[in-house]
Amino acid sequence: MGGSGLNMSRRIRRTPYTDKVEDCGVSGFTVVNHMLLPKLFNKTVEEDYWHLRENVQIWDVSCQRQVEIIGSDAEKLVQIMTPRYIGNMKIGQCLYIPLLDENAGMINDPVLLKLEDNHFWLSIADSDVLLWTKGLAYGLNYDVKILEPEVYPLAIQGPKAEALMASIFGDKIKEIKFFNFKFFDFLGSKQLIARSGYSKQGGFEVYLNGFNLGSKLWEVIWDAGKKFNITAGCPNLIERIEGGLLSYGNEFTIQNNPFECNFDKFLSTDSDHTYIGKNSLEKIKNEGVKKRIKGILFDSVPCPPCAKPFPVLSKKGAKIGQVTSGIYNPRIKKNTGLSMIDIEFWDEGNIIEVQLGDNKITEGIINNIPFS
Amino acid sequence: MGGSGLNMSRRIRRTPYTDKVEDCGVSGFTVVNHMLLPKLFNKTVEEDYWHLRENVQIWDVSCQRQVEIIGSDAEKLVQIMTPRYIGNMKIGQCLYIPLLDENAGMINDPVLLKLEDNHFWLSIADSDVLLWTKGLAYGLNYDVKILEPEVYPLAIQGPKAEALMASIFGDKIKEIKFFNFKFFDFLGSKQLIARSGYSKQGGFEVYLNGFNLGSKLWEVIWDAGKKFNITAGCPNLIERIEGGLLSYGNEFTIQNNPFECNFDKFLSTDSDHTYIGKNSLEKIKNEGVKKRIKGILFDSVPCPPCAKPFPVLSKKGAKIGQVTSGIYNPRIKKNTGLSMIDIEFWDEGNIIEVQLGDNKITEGIINNIPFS
Repeated sequence: MGGSGLNMSRRIRRTPYTDKVEDCGVSGFTVVNHMLLPKLFNKTVEEDYWHLRENVQIWDVSCQRQVEIIGSDAEKLVQIMTPRYIGNMKIGQCLYIPLLDENAGMINDPVLLKLEDNHFWLSIADSDVLLWTKGLAYGLNYDVKILEPEVYPLAIQGPKAEALMASIFGDKIKEIKFFNFKFFDFLGSKQLIARSGYSKQGGFEVYLNGFNLGSKLWEVIWDAGKKFNITAGCPNLIERIEGGLLSYGNEFTIQNNPFECNFDKFLSTDSDHTYIGKNSLEKIKNEGVKKRIKGILFDSVPCPPCAKPFPVLSKKGAKIGQVTSGIYNPRIKKNTGLSMIDIEFWDEGNIIEVQLGDNKITEGIINNIPFS
Repeated sequence: MGGSGLNMSRRIRRTPYTDKVEDCGVSGFTVVNHMLLPKLFNKTVEEDYWHLRENVQIWDVSCQRQVEIIGSDAEKLVQIMTPRYIGNMKIGQCLYIPLLDENAGMINDPVLLKLEDNHFWLSIADSDVLLWTKGLAYGLNYDVKILEPEVYPLAIQGPKAEALMASIFGDKIKEIKFFNFKFFDFLGSKQLIARSGYSKQGGFEVYLNGFNLGSKLWEVIWDAGKKFNITAGCPNLIERIEGGLLSYGNEFTIQNNPFECNFDKFLSTDSDHTYIGKNSLEKIKNEGVKKRIKGILFDSVPCPPCAKPFPVLSKKGAKIGQVTSGIYNPRIKKNTGLSMIDIEFWDEGNIIEVQLGDNKITEGIINNIPFS
């Protein structure tokens, strides 16, 4: 963090849980969708990693803002925004969908939730999908209402998440399948809970509807969580890299196409539906994908923070990619990274070089993701 | 800042000047348009305020990202995005334009630069106008190209700015009128320089085209600036509030209409051009504006940081508005704030109450902006 604090203002929005997060000793934030996301509590990232793998954590992920699309053209609008076919999506289902611009560049990689026919939420990464969606709907003259509802996701992650949530919401919570959701009563309100989250340790996300219920929800989960050894946490960089979970703005941007992000399986190439960027995407496919996101293992202790990408070089010194996120993994006992790598070098096992800050160069090896 | 650091990653983009800013001892950042904006150097905000009023400062305002709109429908597209008439705008001119959604809610308040006929830049505040503009253009099927160019504004602000800039770029710089721009040679490149900036102390903004020229530009200005007592600075909260300069996301959001922001003079109500939100804006005008941004003076030493809005109360205890930015002004010798205030209470001189954190209440008085 280089001694540089974050200057607070209304523009960097607080969440319903920020007071609680501060009570829990948060020591670092980042900003996502104009909103605070905790990044560190009073423990190291490694301590947090081990705890997450063995217990349960409560995460303020309110910054996963929702874009609500409702109206007779809602499904039509969502469908033209993504190459993934949504025609057979069921109510109560979540779907990870790439959003493309006309050049097949990534606008965002949200989770789509189908609440009713022609009623959707896009649970977004860090770009103003609200404005993209509103612009499209205005220009196309579609019959939809688009807004950011007062919904503030709270994630419960880790192997003990199910037992904790069942102790609060009953055994019905166990019936929720991965990437599905059901509604539950909370103090007389109806709340959407999905089995999902930004870790590979399992868990749930409560899409809390209503800012004022935030403190109470946190308290109820916190109190019930004590016997499960709950702590306040946040997306863990070690675990995220290990699991191959990508971050928009870090691993990829609007300059990247979905093939480069390994989103091939989310592109319904067998569907004949129309979507923005279709021509560009087909052209890219025909010409061949030139680079992809890969894992990378490299030495150097301590691993310097990856505040700006580390160039990746061939043994001959040519730039062949970049590490966009990196950190030491105490289980693998190596530095692990996510990196965009040119086709000639992307095979697992290839030896390359990683240029850390201050021109320090270290050897690295290409790895598939997720890391095992 | 509450002891909370900013977690750095590629997603929070560095600028061409971030290395220089760090060399100058930056001690706080905020994030605007997914990019770092310095907020504090190794001096107090008060010291910085006095220095800015008397000398010259160099500010990394790269986060003022440009949305470039070029093509045969460029002017048509920009015109439907704003109630301000742009039909008689000249090449070389800057224009402050509110952007509205269909409800007349504020999307952003950029500065529009006309580079050529059908070639514009929108120099934006903190929301992804790129996505809004691209969505509109796609939906309307307009013939335009829209992109974020590699342009990184650097501001030179303060009463000695003109003398400094003339010593580098020649006396031609003095010919630039307020909110106009000309092109200047810099190391063989052609660079746009405008007389503008986010202070009331006068100065220029260099819209540097080319990331790699950033260090050199900073060095040339820094070296020439020594005899003008230059320091590294940033938008100064005391000076900004005193001058009535608003900040999107702080003083107003998409929930506010341009009347509430006192943008009446930027609404070409005598023009019959079509624009997004026209019906809503006319309805609001006919029904009457219900609240406006006003200045506010209040006591309490020290002034607590306004990380979340301070409610403003009537003497009877009813909520009548909120302070969205506030700080002690050492020249006025009072706390000064910007606040959204209901119509019944917005007259200058009205006595109200400001509810600071922890339920502390202090008396306040409504003031016109700018403060004098």
